[in-house]
Amino acid sequence: IILLPGEKKKAADLMADLPSGPLDIYRKKASFNWKDMLLFLDGEEILAFKVTSDSLLTLENDPLFARRPGEDVPMEKMRELTFLRVKQLFRYDFITKEETMANPWKTVVLSDCLGMYDWAMSAKFFLNKGMFGATVANSGSGRHSRYVENTEDMTTFGCFALTELSHGSNTRAMRTTATYDPSTQEFVIHSPDFEAAKFWVGNLGKTATHAVVFAQLYTPDRVCHGLHSFIVPVRDPKTLLALPGVLVGDIGKKLGQNGLDNGFALFHNVRIPRENLLNKTGDVTADGRYLTPFKDPNKRFGASLGALSGGRVSITRMALINLKLALVVAIRFSATRRQFGPKDTEEIPVLEYQLQQWRLIPYLAAAYALERFSKDIFMNFVEFQIGQIMRDNSDRQAEMGKEIHAIGCSSKPLGSWTAQRGIQECREACGGHGYLAMNRLGNLRDDNDPNCTYEGDNNVLLQQTSNYLLSWLQAKLHDGVRIESPLHTVDFLDDFRRILGTKFKATSMEECMDSAVPLAAYKWLVCFLLVESQKRLQQQRASGKGEFEARNNSQVYYCRSLAIAYIEHDCLRRFHEQTTDEDTPAGLRPVLRKLCALYGLWSLSSHMATLYQGLYCSLYDTHRCRALRLCLKDDAVSLVDVLAPTDFMLNSPVGCADGQLYKNLWSTVMQGSQVLDRPSWWKEFCSDKPAVGSLRPKL
Amino acid sequence: IILLPGEKKKAADLMADLPSGPLDIYRKKASFNWKDMLLFLDGEEILAFKVTSDSLLTLENDPLFARRPGEDVPMEKMRELTFLRVKQLFRYDFITKEETMANPWKTVVLSDCLGMYDWAMSAKFFLNKGMFGATVANSGSGRHSRYVENTEDMTTFGCFALTELSHGSNTRAMRTTATYDPSTQEFVIHSPDFEAAKFWVGNLGKTATHAVVFAQLYTPDRVCHGLHSFIVPVRDPKTLLALPGVLVGDIGKKLGQNGLDNGFALFHNVRIPRENLLNKTGDVTADGRYLTPFKDPNKRFGASLGALSGGRVSITRMALINLKLALVVAIRFSATRRQFGPKDTEEIPVLEYQLQQWRLIPYLAAAYALERFSKDIFMNFVEFQIGQIMRDNSDRQAEMGKEIHAIGCSSKPLGSWTAQRGIQECREACGGHGYLAMNRLGNLRDDNDPNCTYEGDNNVLLQQTSNYLLSWLQAKLHDGVRIESPLHTVDFLDDFRRILGTKFKATSMEECMDSAVPLAAYKWLVCFLLVESQKRLQQQRASGKGEFEARNNSQVYYCRSLAIAYIEHDCLRRFHEQTTDEDTPAGLRPVLRKLCALYGLWSLSSHMATLYQGLYCSLYDTHRCRALRLCLKDDAVSLVDVLAPTDFMLNSPVGCADGQLYKNLWSTVMQGSQVLDRPSWWKEFCSDKPAVGSLRPKL
Repeated sequence: IILLPGEKKKAADLMADLPSGPLDIYRKKASFNWKDMLLFLDGEEILAFKVTSDSLLTLENDPLFARRPGEDVPMEKMRELTFLRVKQLFRYDFITKEETMANPWKTVVLSDCLGMYDWAMSAKFFLNKGMFGATVANSGSGRHSRYVENTEDMTTFGCFALTELSHGSNTRAMRTTATYDPSTQEFVIHSPDFEAAKFWVGNLGKTATHAVVFAQLYTPDRVCHGLHSFIVPVRDPKTLLALPGVLVGDIGKKLGQNGLDNGFALFHNVRIPRENLLNKTGDVTADGRYLTPFKDPNKRFGASLGALSGGRVSITRMALINLKLALVVAIRFSATRRQFGPKDTEEIPVLEYQLQQWRLIPYLAAAYALERFSKDIFMNFVEFQIGQIMRDNSDRQAEMGKEIHAIGCSSKPLGSWTAQRGIQECREACGGHGYLAMNRLGNLRDDNDPNCTYEGDNNVLLQQTSNYLLSWLQAKLHDGVRIESPLHTVDFLDDFRRILGTKFKATSMEECMDSAVPLAAYKWLVCFLLVESQKRLQQQRASGKGEFEARNNSQVYYCRSLAIAYIEHDCLRRFHEQTTDEDTPAGLRPVLRKLCALYGLWSLSSHMATLYQGLYCSLYDTHRCRALRLCLKDDAVSLVDVLAPTDFMLNSPVGCADGQLYKNLWSTVMQGSQVLDRPSWWKEFCSDKPAVGSLRPKL
Repeated sequence: IILLPGEKKKAADLMADLPSGPLDIYRKKASFNWKDMLLFLDGEEILAFKVTSDSLLTLENDPLFARRPGEDVPMEKMRELTFLRVKQLFRYDFITKEETMANPWKTVVLSDCLGMYDWAMSAKFFLNKGMFGATVANSGSGRHSRYVENTEDMTTFGCFALTELSHGSNTRAMRTTATYDPSTQEFVIHSPDFEAAKFWVGNLGKTATHAVVFAQLYTPDRVCHGLHSFIVPVRDPKTLLALPGVLVGDIGKKLGQNGLDNGFALFHNVRIPRENLLNKTGDVTADGRYLTPFKDPNKRFGASLGALSGGRVSITRMALINLKLALVVAIRFSATRRQFGPKDTEEIPVLEYQLQQWRLIPYLAAAYALERFSKDIFMNFVEFQIGQIMRDNSDRQAEMGKEIHAIGCSSKPLGSWTAQRGIQECREACGGHGYLAMNRLGNLRDDNDPNCTYEGDNNVLLQQTSNYLLSWLQAKLHDGVRIESPLHTVDFLDDFRRILGTKFKATSMEECMDSAVPLAAYKWLVCFLLVESQKRLQQQRASGKGEFEARNNSQVYYCRSLAIAYIEHDCLRRFHEQTTDEDTPAGLRPVLRKLCALYGLWSLSSHMATLYQGLYCSLYDTHRCRALRLCLKDDAVSLVDVLAPTDFMLNSPVGCADGQLYKNLWSTVMQGSQVLDRPSWWKEFCSDKPAVGSLRPKL
């Protein structure tokens, strides 16, 4: 984006100043200007989108989106509200298709905003258009376009039905069948038993009218052609009543995201037209012959699930949003909550305590690292998607597909776990007030939690990444291939022998302030774990284990650590590049560099034993670096000001921008419903006193 | 307990066999008999209490306690139900005072059972009698006995009001005042402003009629005599309406335990009789003179808060109960959930995967370690309490008080954090089904969470423990005192110089199977961290820092780790003794030893970097021990059968004893209310379709 000289000020000028209050002490101490940082991270266009016309500001004025922090909303009501809000989002239509095409990042920014408001609402909105609509568009053909169009204005409401009650990770083992009947030119969708019920399907609980159902396709010759997807109507759009043969319902309450109706469906010989097969990867002729452009059924399977791969990249970002919100709450709280002090008469903010800094500030650094990283890998994914749309059949495109898969399969674990742990730390760092629902940390934790599970269990996904890395090593060792990938996340591995000879060299605290130090350590670490994983696998094979068992027995030592180290390295590498880039404003570089060094050293600390075992570190070397995390406290408040949405979006009395911790908390308590009322069941206390021991069990 | 030969069989015979089903495969592989283990852990008397007349079995037959897994109960209803259940508990009166005196452990077993059912109910029950009643009894005198008596049959309902909106950890800084007015012989209880509102008080939200209020006592001469406790009536027991001058209400929804009504109270010059001062540690005469048996106000303060110290020991146990329940769910799930396999046709239980074992089995070992530990330290606490009741003024009793304080301040963090992390791991290990509310892992996590915070924030408490340990080192180095304590948790420190010279010696996997190996490592670790903490403190002082700052700056390096290592060592030491004790049945010793070694090595792994840095380990030594955690999978199901309550108590379809994972899950889903109904707001979908973009914000 090239800006005219006059333009730059515009969006920055629109950024409101923060209200004066108890947080001023820290804001004045900050080493950088928070508006400059925000402008740098978002860029002019996105910032204008955010602070002018965008969802953030509009929703705040719409009573349908009114907030009641910590309100006890029954699940049924939550689902109704969420539905009504999703409908309203269609009216707002914040981004047109054209805008999405012109700047795909805008969709992510919108998703960020909707998610900050409520992830269940965001999911309900995107599952219809993004998941159902996009899957039909990508896996189907021209004959399915009306299904896509009908999602645009909620004429129909879609969902994506893959997992079954007894199968999640092992998608190939799905047991729902679709048997072609040439006599009527229909597919018969059937669930053999309740264990094959489609289960966990978002939107299916109460509202979906149509589902993309994954089922094993059988032709009349009783040949199974593997998993395919079909459009199956499940409810009458005019009545929302279940269609004949479909047992569809709500799976019930979840730990979070209860505005979203996850459901199940059991099909009893449900007939759908032949055309409802999404036929990109295979089709059945009217008379029942199976046709496919793919020769290898494995490739076909891969392609039919290809639509899933963007989800993990998005989840990485979603988790980050949760982490950011939690940090805003916890750091503003810590800067205004005073407890104890050097003198009895004067108490100091808990942020002044070494321990509080040590608990929170590394997560703040992680949030900045992930901010860069999540945007970067989204852009990588967009590049890959464009190639797909352009039908790029090059090797490079195929390689990029594998690489983005390896990235997504590890970036989701990195993002979701960092957020899950960080939110819990934030909750505990806010003490009792962190346990109060109105302060939102519980909501963030509960809504973030499924990020660890859906679109693939984190631990299962990590295997995909380690397999990818091991295959590179294999190719190099056996076929002399040079390790080099389109997105360059593995290029350094080509040099693994030299890297394994390097050592930790920093001798002073000052040297550790350079993120090149942990970055070098990570390069060594990934190489070390790669070689060790390979050795372990070979040992297992040599001892006569089959491939399945050999892989299983190598997960803990060391495939899992390998995948984690790889993605942490990549996240650090990209952040390091940002902080050393000459285009990064000079006024922001010092604080970004500190954050980058801290993130690197902190992440690395969980691998310390490996660094010692592999003789990368001599004793005590890294030890001194650990104090680094303590030098960012004066910037912490401004750093979260950059990450913070409006108070309306944040929805946490103890995290408001004015820092009026107790006033906001107290007034929210007093606004609670029935806060001062005696309970409706007061007579149960005042009369009918228990006769103590009257029900005492007799031996 | 001495048993007659015929007696031993009795309780064991009463233990029901477990239903046959998919878990049989593992149950048959177990290396020990689960009934023998249960009998060994509980003992004859407790087992008889549990499986015959006790709460577990009785509540199951009472419709008031009926379960509906995952039901969406509104907060108001949850509070009503909890109240009614508490009232019913008075009717059951499971343990008489005499039984408590004869075997104090029975109270814990009852608390375990009530907590397994619902911690909010358990808290509501015990806060009245145990917290309010016991505080009045311990801190008051004869003149207060009617208040204690009135709690026995719910004539009054009590609560304990210490923390304020703006003060939690810093209890001394409470700002509520109690000013004596000799003209009417009354105390005037007053909150200077809303920040001094009593806040977070359990039972105060809806039901308490009386509160023990902590306030700064002022005599008419305007002298402040520090924090004292007073009985303050807050609601009329006949109407449950607030009394004049008292603004009392509900603080709102929490992340968990919503059956318990936590509340606030603001006092506007509320007058109470002079006699309502709990006068054990200080009294005011009718004409307004202050009298105290203590000369040192610090000692008085300590004594007035003494009533709190048992809570932390109990919380250690409560956290363990949560961990146990989560493990039962996750391990039974893992043993019956099948996913992938060496062949496409046959899937294997996920418990067979190395990674799943690696995630769950260490927590199972921790549960067994904590089972022994939590019982042991409760008995230590009982010993201390008996001394208090006997008015034992010996040095030994005083020393025991300090030691039990140091234990409780670190055992609570150990227990609550282990449970919190373990439950999260269990939740993730159950994949999506773990995210379904009906399976209870969310409930366990949410209900366990406050254990990290109340009765002292974990991180703040750990400082008390490290201070205790540092004072021992100081006494030895400066005064030549021998380090030796009544409960022997620190005795080994006397030998710290020799211990610091020891090295990790095990060279084979077999040697690591002996828990003496990690135990020796822990001894070295505690000594190392003690000396390093001391050095760090001295450095800080030498650089001119005040004591407050010096302590703060030594928390991360290394006081916090010191306290954690101390209590982990003690937990391991006690478990090690149990597994090597000749009285432990020979048939159980092998599996207990494995668990003990695993617990030790696993706990130790978080300190690995320190072990390397301090040159205790030479390279690769400990590495090989890590595989140990993998050898317990065939015992895992039987190990959780020992820990499991009845299915009714466990309340988790995927964790039932019959192992019918999907049948139980499916039938619970189908029992949900409105599961198949279309939503009440279906017309909102079917008509009033949104005009896309009609509300589009204009720039």
